[in-house]
Amino acid sequence: MTEPAPLTIAVFQCAARDEPATARLERLDAAAARAAAAGARLLVTPEAYLSGYGGMPDTVQARAEPADGPSARRAAEIARRHGLAIVLGYPEAAEGVVYNAALCLGPDGSVLANHRKLGLSGAAEQATYARGGAPTGFELDGHRIAVLICYDLEFPELARSAALAGATVLVAPTALVERWPLVAHKMIPTRAFENGTYVAYANWAGSEPGYRYLGASCIAGPTGEDLARAGDDEALLTAVVDPDAITAARATLPYLQDCRTLPTGS
Amino acid sequence: MTEPAPLTIAVFQCAARDEPATARLERLDAAAARAAAAGARLLVTPEAYLSGYGGMPDTVQARAEPADGPSARRAAEIARRHGLAIVLGYPEAAEGVVYNAALCLGPDGSVLANHRKLGLSGAAEQATYARGGAPTGFELDGHRIAVLICYDLEFPELARSAALAGATVLVAPTALVERWPLVAHKMIPTRAFENGTYVAYANWAGSEPGYRYLGASCIAGPTGEDLARAGDDEALLTAVVDPDAITAARATLPYLQDCRTLPTGS
Repeated sequence: MTEPAPLTIAVFQCAARDEPATARLERLDAAAARAAAAGARLLVTPEAYLSGYGGMPDTVQARAEPADGPSARRAAEIARRHGLAIVLGYPEAAEGVVYNAALCLGPDGSVLANHRKLGLSGAAEQATYARGGAPTGFELDGHRIAVLICYDLEFPELARSAALAGATVLVAPTALVERWPLVAHKMIPTRAFENGTYVAYANWAGSEPGYRYLGASCIAGPTGEDLARAGDDEALLTAVVDPDAITAARATLPYLQDCRTLPTGS
Repeated sequence: MTEPAPLTIAVFQCAARDEPATARLERLDAAAARAAAAGARLLVTPEAYLSGYGGMPDTVQARAEPADGPSARRAAEIARRHGLAIVLGYPEAAEGVVYNAALCLGPDGSVLANHRKLGLSGAAEQATYARGGAPTGFELDGHRIAVLICYDLEFPELARSAALAGATVLVAPTALVERWPLVAHKMIPTRAFENGTYVAYANWAGSEPGYRYLGASCIAGPTGEDLARAGDDEALLTAVVDPDAITAARATLPYLQDCRTLPTGS
């Protein structure tokens, strides 16, 4: 199997603002233009990007759209125009319920996947969203990308499962508040390290009623290093996914091989 | 079920030195005296404490003793005299092979458990040791303690499995070299946080041929905070295991409940 070429990826840490999806799509368009200019082939947004994370349940549910709704079609145009994949957080209206979802659009505007958040954290999310049923991933330029949303990535089981299934990049739209710096600064690098993967973690900046976000979005490499790390303002991060670095990390610490030999009952 | 009373635990970060088991037991005795004076009921040593971690395979194998050998009996006297449990790293001679083990002695000198390292990291360990077969734990004053050695704790599966089986304290003799600060500073707090447990991580300080240790032993609390953290010199750390803090952490972030509902295939 030939190794894929290095892949530049980008994270859009977006400042929270109460505005309609049309305004959010304009900001996405501008971020995508900057990411593409930096050579990126993939752009990850924060959780529930199209609606804003707060305002659960009413505002979020009112702003939910189907995976092929008008905002999704507009986002697909943005992906196609800039020639980069977009992992777009949004509340998805489907089957009479709302999912906390991430639409994965290819550089040609096609739908590559649609992830529905598996772990719902706290009463507000549980009152707003139905739970997704299965892990999700897609291929981009030969790289296998797994999608996890916020709380999903806090479970080592889901990251491990994705890595064992072949993922070398984990992307995570998130909405992490200031209370949890450990997650951004210690857990996310640990997830990358313990699986020998890249992790792109896209958080909100600023605040909205009831939520004061940490910022601190990052792209972590397969030895757990911060390749890029945002502060608490809006930011666009980029880094290069290097298959050789993944191979080297996994040769040094063969967690993915060794985990198969462990007894886990007790 | 009545909650157990708070439990003071201690970690002995020991300076590496080439010396016989008798000298190591004298240093253990002194550390146990200090730990007991600080109110500790449990003391954790580094990995392969009785032999030194380096010198694999020959020196370590030559220094291996059975779980009821003379050094173990002397350690049991130390535990009994100071009235505290000891988790003692040592190379265990058994069944014609050597295990990288941790003998768990009760405050009365009885053997509570004997953990054999499950994950062997790197060629030197694999040339020296046989692999253990099962997770290990014991009860102390009503607290359920799980024992993992070094690389064992780098697998989130083993920590999770222990927590799901009821452990509220994970103790880990280790031999972490300077190359891996991420493990001590990010992964260990993450293990505590993602399971709502305490973690006592006992490393070597200083160096021996081929190994330059990081130090940075720690006791992490159930919200991932460093309750105690060593530098790179010999040190004795103590902290209090508070059942109320465990309950509070697990109520805020119910990882142990929610992980049961996740799909992990993909």
